[in-house]
Formats: sequence, structure tokens, C-alpha cells
Amino acid sequence: MNLLNNIRIVLVEPIFGGNIGSVCRAMNNNGITDLAIVNPRPTTDWDDARKLSCNAKAQLEARKEFQTLEEAIADCTVVAATSARTGFYRDTAYSPKDFAPIGLESAKDHKIAIVFGREDKGLHNEELALCTHIIQIPSDKLYTSLNLSHAVYVCCYEMYCAAGIFQPSEEKANEADSDFRERMFATWREMMIKTEFTHEQKLEHMMMGVRRIFTRGKLTVPDVKILMGLAKQSIWISNEWKKEKEKTND
Amino acid sequence: MNLLNNIRIVLVEPIFGGNIGSVCRAMNNNGITDLAIVNPRPTTDWDDARKLSCNAKAQLEARKEFQTLEEAIADCTVVAATSARTGFYRDTAYSPKDFAPIGLESAKDHKIAIVFGREDKGLHNEELALCTHIIQIPSDKLYTSLNLSHAVYVCCYEMYCAAGIFQPSEEKANEADSDFRERMFATWREMMIKTEFTHEQKLEHMMMGVRRIFTRGKLTVPDVKILMGLAKQSIWISNEWKKEKEKTND
Repeated sequence: MNLLNNIRIVLVEPIFGGNIGSVCRAMNNNGITDLAIVNPRPTTDWDDARKLSCNAKAQLEARKEFQTLEEAIADCTVVAATSARTGFYRDTAYSPKDFAPIGLESAKDHKIAIVFGREDKGLHNEELALCTHIIQIPSDKLYTSLNLSHAVYVCCYEMYCAAGIFQPSEEKANEADSDFRERMFATWREMMIKTEFTHEQKLEHMMMGVRRIFTRGKLTVPDVKILMGLAKQSIWISNEWKKEKEKTND
Repeated sequence: MNLLNNIRIVLVEPIFGGNIGSVCRAMNNNGITDLAIVNPRPTTDWDDARKLSCNAKAQLEARKEFQTLEEAIADCTVVAATSARTGFYRDTAYSPKDFAPIGLESAKDHKIAIVFGREDKGLHNEELALCTHIIQIPSDKLYTSLNLSHAVYVCCYEMYCAAGIFQPSEEKANEADSDFRERMFATWREMMIKTEFTHEQKLEHMMMGVRRIFTRGKLTVPDVKILMGLAKQSIWISNEWKKEKEKTND
């Protein structure tokens, strides 16, 4: 079962259609689909909403509308309010990251909600009273007012990350083993001699440098093939150069 | 020294002024101020940019413009490219969270950059080649295309969180000690008897329930005062009721 299906994003009286569309896209990027709007405004620009929702038009069209916050969250257990302000009633706040495992735990068996206030005035205290948790999004203390879709994005992102669904892209190429690596280093050593890059007494020092550079990250088989091939070619050229020089000296 | 001052956000040929403005606001919310734009388009709607930058107009006006990505990152050590696509050259990617400590470590002594591609086409391979790291933002595998300002927001947010500057708001009220708590529980016990809420044999069981409910979170002194006051009032009413009843029975 996908826990993310049990997460409802609730927007209370949002002003800008563009923000509603961006919210849909932010939800969509993080696998969250349940959008509720409390008391939608007659002035909402729904064309803007559709434009900014991009690939999330289905989310936008499937939104549920409610007259009150009570109705929008009636079937939810955990209800988290987002708030930039602190103070009375708002002091014990969770970061989106700290809230995520709490919300997901309840989302195993129940609907949960994350509630976002108006762009200009946030949530009223009576609305906050209906919520079980407060989320405060970390932000520079001089600029705590976030764009609505940014606030929704970061909450959805932390829920998505905590759900552990995401498979980061990984290096598909095989890692080179010590035997292959050492043959490459031996070829580099030979290149240093043949190209007359360094004096004999500095050779081992230079090779330590090269080893350090190339072992800072994992070397893959294709990586070592490139390094090996380049060194071999350089050795070949050095040999050719020597032959040419001998000809000239003849 | 504030490490965040050493982080440059680089937008390569952004299309929409609104996105540039939203990017400024996202940076501002996370204490990051250095914005570079590579090859700005003559069609950019700067009015839109100003409108959506909100309190971050100063960032927007202070932006640096460059003809090429090379110039925009010339003085940076770590240069991270954001990429939604994976595949050749793009397989070993960091999440924004995993990249943050790496970036901050270099930001102690050097400028670093996080680079974002065009809204429609991202970054070209030649641009990617100039970068030292690739950041892949976790997202639903069916909807990996993020709004530009959302992508910038989440990278800035993770840098800001990792910088450890943020002071979450904390409960300012004193926590109640055991002595105060136990006096409150004793009053509740008395309330249960006086209001005839429960039989004597169920009293201790009910009190265990009440203790469990009230100790799930930390009880503050004002919390305990509310609970104590309510119980005392209820006891008072119960006593009054008994007196009235005795009068009636007279």
C-alpha cells in the first residue's frame, strides 16, 4: 500500500490560481494526489491554475472543495497546520523532516492532512485549534514568508523522502578491482618514464599523487579502460618519437 | 562567517521571468543571496520577475549576468549541476540532502555553485562537463519535471538546514515538575469521585487512563494550571449540586 495516497493537502482560501496550479505540480512530483480546497474564492484564476499545474492537471481537476476546514479534515486523524508565525499556541512546532515519520505512521491506517493558510494571512487561531501538530518550515528569520507552492513542495518532498520509495540513480558500470587498477597504475608508471615526465628519483612520489587522485572516488571498469588506453597511447607515441629521433640522428 | 554567502545559484538561460522572481524569493527564504544568470533571454518578463520576487527584490536587482556558464562559475570550486535525467555521465548523483554537507565543507573557504538548466531542456552535456557533482532531486518516477523555483527552493532549503543556523521555535513555558503534576492528578481523582463519574472499583483504572493521556507530551506549568483549575471548578460545582439537592430534599 502506498502511504502517500493517505496524505491530503488542504489549502484554506487560497488567493492565486497560479499558486493552486503550482501546488498540484509540487504534489505530483512527490507522489501525493489528494487536494482539498476550503472555501474557494470566486476570484480564483483557474486558467492560471491549469497553466501552472503542467502535468498535474488531473490532480487539479480531481480536487475536492469544502465550505469549512472542519469538513475538509473530518476523516483525518493527524492534522498538521503549517505556520510561519510562532507565539501562543504555536510554540511546539515540528520541522517538515521531523513531522514526516509521525505523519506516515498514521497514514498506514488513516487519512492525514497537512493544512496551508491564505497567502496573506495564514491560518486563524480557530483553524489552528483543529490541528494536532504544527509544522514550522526552517527559513531565514528575516524572511519567513514562503511562496505557498514552495511551502507545499517542501512538506510533500519530506513526506516523499521519508516514505523511502525513491530509488536514486546509481552507477551502472562495474567497479574496477585491484588487479585491473594496478595494471593501469603500472601502465601510468611506464608512461611517466617513457614520456620523460619525471626524474627516476621523483617517480614513486608522482605515482603516489596519481594514486591519490584516482582513488578519491570509485573507479569503474570503463574509467580504468580510458586511463589505461590513454597511457598506452602515450607510451606508443613516446616510442615512435624515440624511433624518429634516432632516424634523424642517423 | 556565514557559509551561505559563498553559495551561488546559477540559472542557465531561464525562460520565465516569474520563475526568476520565485527563485529569488526561494533563495531569500534560505539565506542565500548570490544569483547568476547565464545568457539572459531578451524575452524575459522582468516585471513578472519583480512581482514574484516579493521581499527578495534586492537579490533580483543584485543578480550578475554572464554570457557563458564557464564565466559564471570561474571562481567556484565545487560546482553542482541539477539534473532530472539520468544516463550516461549522469549516473552518480547526490540527493540535495547528501550534497549539502559536501557543498558546505568547500564553502568554508571557497565560492561554490549550484547550476540549474533551462525550464524545457535542462543542461547540455557540455555544461554538465564543467560541473564536479550532479544533484538529482528525489521525485516520483513518473513526474520528474520540477518547476524551476521548486528545484532551487529544495536545494537552498537543504543547504540552509545543513548549515545549522535555524533555531526552531520552542515551548517557552516551563515544564511542570512531578510534584505539580501529582497535585493535579489528585485533584482529577477527587473530581471523578465528586462528580460521580465512576465507581470506586473503576477509579484507579480511569486514573491510569487520564495519566496516560496527559503524559503523552510534555505538560507545561500553564497546561497543568488549566487542568487543575477545571477540576477544582468541577469539584466546587459538584459540592454546590449536593447542597442544592439536600435543600430540595428538606
